[in-house]
Amino acid sequence: MITQNYFDYAAATPMNSEVVDSMLPYFSDDFFNPSSDYLNAKKIAKDIQTARQDIASCLGVKPTEIIFTAGGTEANNLAISGVAEKYSGSTLACSVVEHKSVIAPTLRYKHKLLEVDKTGVINLSKLKQEITDDVVLVSLILANNEIGTIMPMKETSRIIQKIRDSRKSKKNNLPLLLHTDASQAGNYLSLKPYSLGVDMMTINGGKIYGPKQSGILYVKTGIDIHPLVIGGGQERGLRSGTENVAGIIGFAKALIMSQNLREQELKRMQKLHKLFVRELNQNIPNAIINGSKKRLPNNLHITVPGIDNERVMMILDERGYQVAVGSACNASSEEPSHVLRAIGLSDKDARSSLRFTMGRFTSEESIKGLIKNLSEICG
Amino acid sequence: MITQNYFDYAAATPMNSEVVDSMLPYFSDDFFNPSSDYLNAKKIAKDIQTARQDIASCLGVKPTEIIFTAGGTEANNLAISGVAEKYSGSTLACSVVEHKSVIAPTLRYKHKLLEVDKTGVINLSKLKQEITDDVVLVSLILANNEIGTIMPMKETSRIIQKIRDSRKSKKNNLPLLLHTDASQAGNYLSLKPYSLGVDMMTINGGKIYGPKQSGILYVKTGIDIHPLVIGGGQERGLRSGTENVAGIIGFAKALIMSQNLREQELKRMQKLHKLFVRELNQNIPNAIINGSKKRLPNNLHITVPGIDNERVMMILDERGYQVAVGSACNASSEEPSHVLRAIGLSDKDARSSLRFTMGRFTSEESIKGLIKNLSEICG
Repeated sequence: MITQNYFDYAAATPMNSEVVDSMLPYFSDDFFNPSSDYLNAKKIAKDIQTARQDIASCLGVKPTEIIFTAGGTEANNLAISGVAEKYSGSTLACSVVEHKSVIAPTLRYKHKLLEVDKTGVINLSKLKQEITDDVVLVSLILANNEIGTIMPMKETSRIIQKIRDSRKSKKNNLPLLLHTDASQAGNYLSLKPYSLGVDMMTINGGKIYGPKQSGILYVKTGIDIHPLVIGGGQERGLRSGTENVAGIIGFAKALIMSQNLREQELKRMQKLHKLFVRELNQNIPNAIINGSKKRLPNNLHITVPGIDNERVMMILDERGYQVAVGSACNASSEEPSHVLRAIGLSDKDARSSLRFTMGRFTSEESIKGLIKNLSEICG
Repeated sequence: MITQNYFDYAAATPMNSEVVDSMLPYFSDDFFNPSSDYLNAKKIAKDIQTARQDIASCLGVKPTEIIFTAGGTEANNLAISGVAEKYSGSTLACSVVEHKSVIAPTLRYKHKLLEVDKTGVINLSKLKQEITDDVVLVSLILANNEIGTIMPMKETSRIIQKIRDSRKSKKNNLPLLLHTDASQAGNYLSLKPYSLGVDMMTINGGKIYGPKQSGILYVKTGIDIHPLVIGGGQERGLRSGTENVAGIIGFAKALIMSQNLREQELKRMQKLHKLFVRELNQNIPNAIINGSKKRLPNNLHITVPGIDNERVMMILDERGYQVAVGSACNASSEEPSHVLRAIGLSDKDARSSLRFTMGRFTSEESIKGLIKNLSEICG
């Protein structure tokens, strides 16, 4: 059961009740296969099409640019290997702080990893020389799942446009595509591919109060990628398999709600973030906040030198507070996080670090209670 | 809404209400990420593990042999490309009547397609010569999704074992694996990999009154395949992505219910099948039943020479009966079915063919009503 003392919204969000309600009719009543030919089935196909249009309107893109996938990890895999297989032999680039579902497929091909500074941001001034003539794809996480840092996407996009222009003048016909994993961003940032300047974007339903293993990959018109899962030809051949009808309907509802609530939640969260920092500074003055000032307002990643984060997490758990010691997106988290290493934390400091991520049910009281308990445990 | 006049259970099954009920707690209450470290999350991981054990018991296999996938199509893709990538350069074999989610990935690699007879069964006497020394995988559909024909899996498995033995004596170390797509079989056939003699098996939740885009790939211990979707390392690295918790719980419930109800439903369906054939022979004597006598009891695939199946389907739809003109698993069904071509039907006869698939809500009355209407339309 969700309580206001849950501080791990980056790992999972509870499904919104309106999202659940929107899905229920599709389980046992409107259960038909959207590819069937009779009217009851065509209605389902129409409902999927409406969901696709609603998502497209929300993102300011075309309905044909939306590919429904079984989650964010699959969408990231599709983006990376979809481009790599299409332009085989070329090089992929991504930052060292990407989610593993971006890094792992990238490592399967010729690649280069873009370093980040201590705040988790790539080096924009080096980008032009890093993106050599053989690079076909740059993938950057819009907002980091561990430390909350927001990547300078528009600035990156502008540099990439310049590289494209210079390729043209060199008669290099290799496209240069920009993909962003926006899985963590949907509740607080605007997800407009055109204004961000990205060609592909991953959105994850499980992080925006929607169903787990629902998601989309946005792919700009004109970009041709290879599918990962093939067969019946659903999603214009880019993701075969009978559609997860309820999941699609729920995803659309969740995305639209998140984006509609965004500005209101952003303001509320910025206030809570300030309170969190103030309480932290007052009660645990040796705590260091990791990441950038340009960050998700719901994320606080801290190092308290000397503490054993596993032990602190467990005591907090006993006291009713759920917090994270690493990214829950890894099935096994024995290894220190690659993100914390990349921003220069020692393995020792990584083991003294905690991630708090807030959400719709977080209150001022829960923050005060958390810091009070944390200070007792760490003190 | 499901009615007893729905005759397209092979395309989609309504979710059983107990299945829906089993999933509901995981949407908004037990929503935690099973990879998180606190107790509420560990409970979810335990629930997934229980589901995995229940499925394993039901199939008579080990829990570690179950990989949860986002549906049957993905499981088929994982089986085919997972083996092909592991043993790159070797040859894949499958029958010409496989589902497209088997055929399409098979065609990406060196392959051979196994012909079938007019009933849709592969030629067992030719198998030994067809499975040459370079073949690593044979994939055969347990029960055909269009014509209902049941493949002689145990006999195939025995022949394959002989080929394995002969490879050993020739010091050919290439494994020879047998995969079956059992997506359509779960409601009426036993799904015990050991007794069927298969090494890998696909099961599809959406066809057994469970959630769409839920499924598993069974992979026998000792078989090493490449993953399709990578990242966080869930499912022992073979299917990354935060688990579709509700989908997994619902899939387990649906599979166990289907297998528990199997013998009872089989008997009921055999009676309904006889009634269907009798009514058909009496009222539409020129109708030809396609496929084998060894078939799914809920499937009747017929050709009524001269009729326009699209037109008949639409009139039946107006009268409240939902039937299929092709496999709904194809997003676009313009092309005549590859299965019907393979069993020797002309394109003209294929366009005069209809598929009726029955299920839990089918009654004697609904069959009599269907045939009465069909005979009026075709007469």
